[in-house]
Amino acid sequence: MYTSECQLEVRYYECDQMGIVHHSNYVRFFECGRDQMMKELGIPIEKMEEENIMFPVVSLEIHFKIPSRMGDTLKVATTLTKMPMAKMLFDQRIYNQKDELVCYGNVVVGFISADRRVPIRAPRSLTEKIAEYFPEDVK
Amino acid sequence: MYTSECQLEVRYYECDQMGIVHHSNYVRFFECGRDQMMKELGIPIEKMEEENIMFPVVSLEIHFKIPSRMGDTLKVATTLTKMPMAKMLFDQRIYNQKDELVCYGNVVVGFISADRRVPIRAPRSLTEKIAEYFPEDVK
Amino acid sequence: MYTSECQLEVRYYECDQMGIVHHSNYVRFFECGRDQMMKELGIPIEKMEEENIMFPVVSLEIHFKIPSRMGDTLKVATTLTKMPMAKMLFDQRIYNQKDELVCYGNVVVGFISADRRVPIRAPRSLTEKIAEYFPEDVK
Amino acid sequence: MYTSECQLEVRYYECDQMGIVHHSNYVRFFECGRDQMMKELGIPIEKMEEENIMFPVVSLEIHFKIPSRMGDTLKVATTLTKMPMAKMLFDQRIYNQKDELVCYGNVVVGFISADRRVPIRAPRSLTEKIAEYFPEDVK
Repeated sequence: MYTSECQLEVRYYECDQMGIVHHSNYVRFFECGRDQMMKELGIPIEKMEEENIMFPVVSLEIHFKIPSRMGDTLKVATTLTKMPMAKMLFDQRIYNQKDELVCYGNVVVGFISADRRVPIRAPRSLTEKIAEYFPEDVK
Repeated sequence: MYTSECQLEVRYYECDQMGIVHHSNYVRFFECGRDQMMKELGIPIEKMEEENIMFPVVSLEIHFKIPSRMGDTLKVATTLTKMPMAKMLFDQRIYNQKDELVCYGNVVVGFISADRRVPIRAPRSLTEKIAEYFPEDVK
Repeated sequence: MYTSECQLEVRYYECDQMGIVHHSNYVRFFECGRDQMMKELGIPIEKMEEENIMFPVVSLEIHFKIPSRMGDTLKVATTLTKMPMAKMLFDQRIYNQKDELVCYGNVVVGFISADRRVPIRAPRSLTEKIAEYFPEDVK
Repeated sequence: MYTSECQLEVRYYECDQMGIVHHSNYVRFFECGRDQMMKELGIPIEKMEEENIMFPVVSLEIHFKIPSRMGDTLKVATTLTKMPMAKMLFDQRIYNQKDELVCYGNVVVGFISADRRVPIRAPRSLTEKIAEYFPEDVK
């Protein structure tokens, strides 16, 4: 298991006329969380793209618990619960500055060869970095 | 059952550096689809807000099948499969101009009293309009 | 002179907590207007990109007159006042359904060779199409 | 003169299919810069709104110098060059992590009474805080 965190301050344009962060933005914050994890793992998304790998979202699910507002600081906690193979599964949770759970969900991302536009397996540069966090999966 | 449709042309700023519509935008297109339905039912979202009712998203799930791009025209099909009570459940599908399924999912929306900030039941003005589409649920 | 028009309905997520369309979205609507013009001229932006030409915004100016809201239908009027050379100058205006001026401004866009990343002149495929609207500039 | 700074990391969804931050996002980053300044001055935007004051953008101008990309960290420098009266004028500049100027411009923001929807003068709570930075304007 590997968890990564990033912090985001709510921006004015992210709030809707209910005065709360528009739900679609949490989907974007989730992405920030995943990108932060990839960066920490030494394979930032822009480097993966340079290596001809695209990283499209396959599905996502998200449950909204409490609203957040202008002035809030959010923490996106992103967890990898399994060693990635053809796909990468992220558990994601967003907390506010009071440590209340704002929303949670999961996102599945695939790997695609950018030039051939076909699904590929997780790149070795990624799995090697991740392997140490999943000793039981690597024999 | 009640289905509503709306058409959207892909906009340049909605596409990301993979050259495809960013996944978060489909969540927004789903919202356009629901707002279109509410408008057709005679209760546009802005009218509901005037009547002190907020309409926050409780959860959503979305599966991405094929990408869409600049130049594509999307059709958002939104279906209400049940008579709304405390919540409103929408089945949503997006097709491109070749009638290929781009993504599908479902969204649950609640009703909240804007001033008291507590959950309420579906407003009567809404259920009365919808009732005719669900004859079996209304006896 | 050449003018093009496109219509856009205000979307919920485009409105901020003042209950009005967030000012940054008019910058995006302006882009929709320019893309509509390029499409009408037979050179949609995606085609220009296929031909290795990028079309980056160099500068923009915008004046906001009255707000717009959920339920409004906006008309983006985009005018080309000069024959494009190294740059393309657009005059843009947005009106609401009551024909009131919501905002106006101008945008300068350049042409760049996508692979060499250097400025280039307006592509001939574009200037040939536009020339008929500027008879005095073409001798 | 009063200057405020805030830092932003480029997010994936902010980049377009040219692989660069979409120009409309700098308009949003400018807003982040102004909100940061208001926060530093002790009058965050959400507090101003609680006091019945809206803060709509009246006009803006922006010049784009070099692109920014995924992986870049941007610094938004926001400067108040005059004591605010009926309007507030911001000079804004965005630099990347190499201290290169990405874009610059200016934004004019007005003050509006939220319930009466009429223009008002800069609130005293704001001008008192700002006055110390403009000794020559306050006699």
